[in-house]
Amino acid sequence: MKPLEDYLVIDFSQFLSGPSASLRLADLGARVIKIEKPTTGDICRTLYTSDLIMNGESSIFHTINRNKESFAVDFKNPEDLKIIKRLLEKADVVMHNFRPEVMSRIGLSYDDVKSISPNVVYAEISGYGNHPELVDKPGQDLLLQSLTALTWLTGNQNDGPVAMGLSIVDMLAGAHLAQGILAALYKKTVTNTGALVQVSMLESALDFQFETITTFFNDGGELPVRTKSNNAHAYLGAPYGIYKTNDGYLALAMGSIPVLANLLQCDALLKFPENKFELRDKIKAVLAKHLKTQSTQHWLDILEPADIWCAKVLNYQELFQEEGFKVLDFVQKVTMGDGYTYETTRCPIKIDGELFFADQGSPKLGEHNEKILEELIHG
Amino acid sequence: MKPLEDYLVIDFSQFLSGPSASLRLADLGARVIKIEKPTTGDICRTLYTSDLIMNGESSIFHTINRNKESFAVDFKNPEDLKIIKRLLEKADVVMHNFRPEVMSRIGLSYDDVKSISPNVVYAEISGYGNHPELVDKPGQDLLLQSLTALTWLTGNQNDGPVAMGLSIVDMLAGAHLAQGILAALYKKTVTNTGALVQVSMLESALDFQFETITTFFNDGGELPVRTKSNNAHAYLGAPYGIYKTNDGYLALAMGSIPVLANLLQCDALLKFPENKFELRDKIKAVLAKHLKTQSTQHWLDILEPADIWCAKVLNYQELFQEEGFKVLDFVQKVTMGDGYTYETTRCPIKIDGELFFADQGSPKLGEHNEKILEELIHG
Repeated sequence: MKPLEDYLVIDFSQFLSGPSASLRLADLGARVIKIEKPTTGDICRTLYTSDLIMNGESSIFHTINRNKESFAVDFKNPEDLKIIKRLLEKADVVMHNFRPEVMSRIGLSYDDVKSISPNVVYAEISGYGNHPELVDKPGQDLLLQSLTALTWLTGNQNDGPVAMGLSIVDMLAGAHLAQGILAALYKKTVTNTGALVQVSMLESALDFQFETITTFFNDGGELPVRTKSNNAHAYLGAPYGIYKTNDGYLALAMGSIPVLANLLQCDALLKFPENKFELRDKIKAVLAKHLKTQSTQHWLDILEPADIWCAKVLNYQELFQEEGFKVLDFVQKVTMGDGYTYETTRCPIKIDGELFFADQGSPKLGEHNEKILEELIHG
Repeated sequence: MKPLEDYLVIDFSQFLSGPSASLRLADLGARVIKIEKPTTGDICRTLYTSDLIMNGESSIFHTINRNKESFAVDFKNPEDLKIIKRLLEKADVVMHNFRPEVMSRIGLSYDDVKSISPNVVYAEISGYGNHPELVDKPGQDLLLQSLTALTWLTGNQNDGPVAMGLSIVDMLAGAHLAQGILAALYKKTVTNTGALVQVSMLESALDFQFETITTFFNDGGELPVRTKSNNAHAYLGAPYGIYKTNDGYLALAMGSIPVLANLLQCDALLKFPENKFELRDKIKAVLAKHLKTQSTQHWLDILEPADIWCAKVLNYQELFQEEGFKVLDFVQKVTMGDGYTYETTRCPIKIDGELFFADQGSPKLGEHNEKILEELIHG
């Protein structure tokens, strides 16, 4: 039995952050009903400028919304709003990522929902919390990376700001919301009281940088400095980074420079008797020059037996061909209501040895209206 | 009242991933006791090659281990092991991130602990789950980024693999473990049964890439391609990226190219009547040339009123000077047992309007031995 089985989540959220949190709740066994506007639905259905469309809608929508039901209703229609409110009577969790005034305007603020369902867990993600100047900015991942200085940690010293190439802030805000909801559900079973759980993308982006922000505040306010080459963490010394070899790339984490110099038979590196932080640019330059003279496997054969923290840099084709990857059973095939199938990932959390699969794909807009009306409203 | 108040977490984990999960449990109110080896303790206390040492130990240790107690005991000493087992009788959650055989060898496997505390939630993070070839590799963040192909999403097309400049895999694995523990705690209160919660850094790194992996599997196995310049997401079209202006940098998320061309008065851009994905390199090159002719504020003044998703790129000094940042109250001062104080971040989750602060800093190795013996063993 999945831990959240028999739980009902009514999810008004769109895009990535909120839906990634409700995906996790669905993974853990909850029934997630996605409330969408008729005609357009979740903006994420069509939010793509990439060239991959799956079954007429964006790949990102299908990734995040598998294993959910879609209920299309018009908030502005009083009859529809009545139906939503009857649905909310049965909800254990209600989620949204609109600006707060949107839910108040349609009569579905926390107080409104609490008057219908007194012990509800009401969870919301905003872009910028109570930051007074940013409150009206769109809560979009790249903007959040830029506004929270995250872009000065990746890439090399002369690259300018470099964004992390995935929607990291959305993902973390979703993970934090799921944590808050789970903590509130736990408390609800103990004390029989609901809760308001709030997360902002801004605070999640800052939490992600807890190490570098703590360093900044305790290091006299000096800005992080990336190395000139092979940077992989602005606050770490050499050799930490990725290096070109004569046939690929090698990642080297923390390690003693003199030990490395001997193992790699690199005379130029022997001149650096310690891991002096202030010499890291020079050490990395020497290492980069030396490592590109041989193959990745050549270096791994020397370094791995000596317990040096190193790895080959793989791409998707190399990774997914590995027998070891197949053993993980990480990719599952899911099927939409109209029979369209696609492959996507599964939940990364294993409980009591059980991997949580669910073969239901993403819903077509309004696909479950009748089923939901029958089971939860007229039933 | 914090949701996990009165809960006891016995945490054997070290480094970043496990301790970041127990930090979240501590944030949410649990009492976290860190079990450490005498003399050295958590390797993270001394794991730094950066140049910031705080109170004799690494800044990363202080960041992740605030609001925890330290109990130093020698697993190999039978008397100490007896004390640990008596402590485990009272534990609601037991956590570790050793290799599985380590806990079995010292007699503290899930089965062992269950025989002491039948309803325990036992949670573990491994590097590579059941991946047969990787199981013995060190579970280190940069190696995980490299082995899961994450490095081909950030940076530009000709940059080679680029690591994300923070310990993203540690952070996500920690977030997933915290989710699993919270779900198991919830289930424990409902069904009065414990659980084994397992997460691997490998699967967490893959889950992070759920969007791009889903695209890869449904797009004929084509590798992701980053744009030649201004890349911020390999699967998104122009303008998505960060651009240099004549006095700084501007982030531009999704947006219509013809609309942008008109707003920016960029004639060269008018030649691109649509957001054609295959023209994204050319569109970005034109945009990059045009945007560097004026200041960031000049462009923001044009784009923001038109609801274009854009932002200034800030650094830490600019961000933390803002009045708006101060309103967030995101940085808290904590105090160690010896009086040493430092500034660090707080929990990003708000429940019932309450921000969760805790002014206790990180523990000195073994600082709480006497207190723990008195309260939990002899008490």
